[in-house]
Amino acid sequence: MKVHGKYYRAVWMHRRDVVVIDQTLLPHRFKLLCLKNHRETARAISTMTIRGAGTIGATAAYGMAQAFLENQSPSYIRKAYETLVTTRPTAVDLKHSVDRVMACVVSRRSCGSSALQTAVVAEAERIADEYAARSRRIGEVGLPLIPSRRRGGVRVLTHCNAGWLALVDWGSATAPIYLAYRKGRKVFVWVDETRPRNQGASLTSWELLNEGVPHKIIADNAGGFYMQRGEVDLCIVGADRIAANGDAANKIGTYQKAVLARENGIPFYVAAPTSTIDWKCPTGADILIEERDEDEVRFIGGVRLAPRGARAANPAFDVTPARFITGIITEQGIVKPGGLRGLR
Amino acid sequence: MKVHGKYYRAVWMHRRDVVVIDQTLLPHRFKLLCLKNHRETARAISTMTIRGAGTIGATAAYGMAQAFLENQSPSYIRKAYETLVTTRPTAVDLKHSVDRVMACVVSRRSCGSSALQTAVVAEAERIADEYAARSRRIGEVGLPLIPSRRRGGVRVLTHCNAGWLALVDWGSATAPIYLAYRKGRKVFVWVDETRPRNQGASLTSWELLNEGVPHKIIADNAGGFYMQRGEVDLCIVGADRIAANGDAANKIGTYQKAVLARENGIPFYVAAPTSTIDWKCPTGADILIEERDEDEVRFIGGVRLAPRGARAANPAFDVTPARFITGIITEQGIVKPGGLRGLR
Repeated sequence: MKVHGKYYRAVWMHRRDVVVIDQTLLPHRFKLLCLKNHRETARAISTMTIRGAGTIGATAAYGMAQAFLENQSPSYIRKAYETLVTTRPTAVDLKHSVDRVMACVVSRRSCGSSALQTAVVAEAERIADEYAARSRRIGEVGLPLIPSRRRGGVRVLTHCNAGWLALVDWGSATAPIYLAYRKGRKVFVWVDETRPRNQGASLTSWELLNEGVPHKIIADNAGGFYMQRGEVDLCIVGADRIAANGDAANKIGTYQKAVLARENGIPFYVAAPTSTIDWKCPTGADILIEERDEDEVRFIGGVRLAPRGARAANPAFDVTPARFITGIITEQGIVKPGGLRGLR
Repeated sequence: MKVHGKYYRAVWMHRRDVVVIDQTLLPHRFKLLCLKNHRETARAISTMTIRGAGTIGATAAYGMAQAFLENQSPSYIRKAYETLVTTRPTAVDLKHSVDRVMACVVSRRSCGSSALQTAVVAEAERIADEYAARSRRIGEVGLPLIPSRRRGGVRVLTHCNAGWLALVDWGSATAPIYLAYRKGRKVFVWVDETRPRNQGASLTSWELLNEGVPHKIIADNAGGFYMQRGEVDLCIVGADRIAANGDAANKIGTYQKAVLARENGIPFYVAAPTSTIDWKCPTGADILIEERDEDEVRFIGGVRLAPRGARAANPAFDVTPARFITGIITEQGIVKPGGLRGLR
């Protein structure tokens, strides 16, 4: 998507370098990092210079391709695989991506070194392209939710960042919005700032600003107020994991907005690639919620908010029960949360 | 209430000085300010060195008493009255308090100068004492909501600061909590940080910490999560204005918690002195909501959160419809929101 008017993805390969947008510096500084070898690429994943399921997956695939360009000895490749796969132990997309690059090698064992290099780079590119294409497809599937004829346009509320920075290109929750906007449809976005890590204020707003989409950042406390006033037509959020019964885990605060949307008769959609569905997880009750450091609540940007000695609690995610979700926007279509099994 | 183990009110008079806790420095620094004359006292109100309906009312009454100690000429007193009454134009308690001190003078016109001085200081003290007594009474009325026998104690969620800093002593939402804790009952408080101005994290947590009440600060996004898990037994919040039909205006985000409480079967109480009821205001729809500066959302403690050029929206209050309110805890008893007229 666009940054200062120029087209970018969240990660790509240039010759032997993996190039990423340093997400830790956003929204204040836009800086590209050239990662010279697979070790630097692994470090960019583990230090969260880049984040988001799809962007992690694509970056790891490129890192694996870099390793093959560096040295094709089995022990070197095995070590590189281990380095990359352990950067973020719980990221499902990461393992899947590096495994795919490895499988591509196995099937080409008889090729020469140069042909093999070409093949692994092509496979990594294919993986990144697939993330981008799936996200764009989510945009197309969700587009009818933002109709062109609606008077005054459509006002969408979103939470956290389910944008292109997290998914190579287009994003999930943001994809229908970007596509509608590019097609000249009138769309406005309420951006929850998303405490405690402020990904809405810092990442989603930055994305929307660069794409030119009208929006306003609001405190997480204010969404219900605008729903009550009839100033929200639609909610679209992302998901970190979706259980087989349609319960969806996403950034803390998502559940609150889902309950408020239902109370106010507003459709509430979850947008996510089908890879987000965890078939081994029957219901939301089986999803373990990460409790993060108290200081994320007590401090912000190095500034202490709470008195010394005060305790805080910091659950990172919550689970929105399927009954609050109008539909799940996937690359295969919009499905009712109760009907997920049809996608299997 | 207690600060570092010593008893304080939010404001009091010492000889000719009005002494206040500088609330702008909390929670990081506890500093008392001696306001030497009625002009300094007026400035402390207008610059929000002190805030909160009751504390403003008591401070203004003391300021009026100071004016009489300074100079009893009618023109001086008239000017002092104007100075004090215009410090916060929408504060109902402020006007009521200075009017009371003025009325006390009118009824004692025949007294000598020294007797008059004694009388106005006594009237100002009475006003402050009444705020403190009403708050304590709200604590007594609300105490049965935090029963001693409940296994594991009672877990209360509160929003913003409806504490003693705002009401001279005891507070409104906090009064039943402080009283229960002093009586040895087991009580725990979830403190919403209350973006964008963080009064929960900075003021309520500071009050509770000094009083010794166990609590944790949470992002405004997390309350629903703990309700869903059965870890909130009760919500108590304050109110800025209550309409005659029981709709209650309070800090932005209150409505969200009320909807979530009902969804999760949790009682939701508003605690406020009956002076908060605006009989001229038939329903919540008649309450005008203040829209504050965008930078309260875009910055925090001088740190920019949002990208340059991003817009924000910042409604300061919201209205919780009466149907979400279990009861209103007043100094006259707990009333159903639909039954407010009985108090008139």
